[in-house]
Amino acid sequence: MFKAEIKSDTMKGLVNIVSTLIDEVKFTVDPEGMSLKAVDPAHVAMIELRISAGAFESYVADETEIGLDLDKVKSVLKLASSGDIIAMEQDDDHGKLVFRVGNITRRMHLVDTSGMSDPKVPQLSLSAKVRIAVDELQQGIRASETISDHIALTASPEGFELSCEGDTDSVSLIVPKDKLESLEAEGTYCSLFPLDYFANLVKAIPAGTIVNIELDKDYPINIRFQIAEGKGKVDYLLAPRIESD
Amino acid sequence: MFKAEIKSDTMKGLVNIVSTLIDEVKFTVDPEGMSLKAVDPAHVAMIELRISAGAFESYVADETEIGLDLDKVKSVLKLASSGDIIAMEQDDDHGKLVFRVGNITRRMHLVDTSGMSDPKVPQLSLSAKVRIAVDELQQGIRASETISDHIALTASPEGFELSCEGDTDSVSLIVPKDKLESLEAEGTYCSLFPLDYFANLVKAIPAGTIVNIELDKDYPINIRFQIAEGKGKVDYLLAPRIESD
Amino acid sequence: MFKAEIKSDTMKGLVNIVSTLIDEVKFTVDPEGMSLKAVDPAHVAMIELRISAGAFESYVADETEIGLDLDKVKSVLKLASSGDIIAMEQDDDHGKLVFRVGNITRRMHLVDTSGMSDPKVPQLSLSAKVRIAVDELQQGIRASETISDHIALTASPEGFELSCEGDTDSVSLIVPKDKLESLEAEGTYCSLFPLDYFANLVKAIPAGTIVNIELDKDYPINIRFQIAEGKGKVDYLLAPRIESD
Repeated sequence: MFKAEIKSDTMKGLVNIVSTLIDEVKFTVDPEGMSLKAVDPAHVAMIELRISAGAFESYVADETEIGLDLDKVKSVLKLASSGDIIAMEQDDDHGKLVFRVGNITRRMHLVDTSGMSDPKVPQLSLSAKVRIAVDELQQGIRASETISDHIALTASPEGFELSCEGDTDSVSLIVPKDKLESLEAEGTYCSLFPLDYFANLVKAIPAGTIVNIELDKDYPINIRFQIAEGKGKVDYLLAPRIESD
Repeated sequence: MFKAEIKSDTMKGLVNIVSTLIDEVKFTVDPEGMSLKAVDPAHVAMIELRISAGAFESYVADETEIGLDLDKVKSVLKLASSGDIIAMEQDDDHGKLVFRVGNITRRMHLVDTSGMSDPKVPQLSLSAKVRIAVDELQQGIRASETISDHIALTASPEGFELSCEGDTDSVSLIVPKDKLESLEAEGTYCSLFPLDYFANLVKAIPAGTIVNIELDKDYPINIRFQIAEGKGKVDYLLAPRIESD
Repeated sequence: MFKAEIKSDTMKGLVNIVSTLIDEVKFTVDPEGMSLKAVDPAHVAMIELRISAGAFESYVADETEIGLDLDKVKSVLKLASSGDIIAMEQDDDHGKLVFRVGNITRRMHLVDTSGMSDPKVPQLSLSAKVRIAVDELQQGIRASETISDHIALTASPEGFELSCEGDTDSVSLIVPKDKLESLEAEGTYCSLFPLDYFANLVKAIPAGTIVNIELDKDYPINIRFQIAEGKGKVDYLLAPRIESD
């Protein structure tokens, strides 16, 4: 059983993040909230998301699984204005989720979750920790997009750097230590990442959000941030590109 | 002879409605105003429009016919800002209509109307009558567009419903009786219509317009509304899709 | 050596104008400012531009040449908001120009200017002179775009006219003498020009700019206007299309 009401803005924020990675998702539902673990088809990135019952306007649920096609959910979200409430209710007999927005009722076929296993989230111990406003990352991405397909992220005792090296041109954005929310880096830690994955995620995070970045040398990056006004949490892991010499 | 001035907004409203159905139209002109009857190439919908001389800023005309390519008229309308006056004058010798907007003069070749006969408008007696703000219909269309190519419209003593049934998903918008401007339905009357025709028309009607819908069981729908601040009137007839069992 | 700072809006204005004609340009730099002479690949139009050191926030330069790919410069301009300052510095050793916008550093490979010779600017003595707000020209272009590929420009003692003759339709915009800033025309001077060149230039000129037009009978047109708040000047020459009878 699953029956809940949520602000359309909260749901939009959540769907925007997850749909950068995958189209069909399995939410694991329990009385305390919903969670999701997913990898993209190319196994380059992984997302782990948890949103508590408190993020909803109302929430009643047993343990269950809900498989959603996010493109369909987006078409429902388009019917809601900012401030609208979206009501959802699982219809067990028919494998459907019923959405209500104003006087519209939308019955959505659920995706079969039987073949969707949860990926194993690796336990990483990463040396450098940076807290930074996502707006800085967004500016760095805008500067990088015409230069190369990869972006280098570097944490050092001086600050945090996004840089991109093309065949003829290069660009870098340096955020000095005093412009960061916090910085822990005893040495210099740099890894190279696919720009499209990094850019799609960073663009989907609302302006003003503070993100926690954990980084190491030629290691995956962990990007952690809150959603749903602090009632939800996202961990995003992105594999590095290792350059062979 | 035909010589008239009209507010660009009034003319835009008129052209937006008619061009949902056809590109080339024949206006029948007389001293009291202009009218038009047309069917679309697939003979699925019919439009009947009348705009009185009072809708114009100035109007002098004998009985005549004016054949217009609406795409060309739209290019003239793009030159006018809201509040601008568009002057039109038929140039009999050359088969042209001369438009003036500000200090621009645009001479437009008229479409030959000799082969364009007026369609016969069927006299229908439809059982259910609904008056509703077009905004509700527009919201219903937005909800339907990803579901199916057809939309079912239902009038019953309880209210008016737009619904759409897809292979796996469905959507419905119910407007209860007390949210309608008026409702006359002794029983339940439902017909199925092609969504694209219905959607194109409804999107072209200005927000806030009250439309009169006449409906029956597996019968055409008649959608009637005013244009030009009440100085013009549109009747739109749309054929149903009859489902074979 | 070249090191300068400029308001992003000033630089955007300059790049918008020049990029209507060519993608790769050679700026000739000296201590008093920068200049450029260029023809388009089809040799239909020529641009001559001069911007003085006073148009910059700071400016230090020896005599040098800077070859720029304007598409790349546009990608830098997208990183700057209105009011931002863009710093540029030539990096002699590497043939690069280094841009700084906020905390972003962008190193741009310079285009090789060795094969780029300055075109010879013809000395023309044109009979009619018109000063007109570019907004009028922009309105005339909007009216012409669906009619023909060519636009006729006419100066006469009565005023200035833009006109376009298609197979079936025609359009003209007449600006009478009293709506012009000034007019010198002892007779009637008319030439025909390719609409796309004329339109691209006129659309790139900021609204409110007064342009000086010099015109003759079947002769090139010279369009002159100021940029950078009067600290820069553009001369644009466009070849006429001569109609054979």
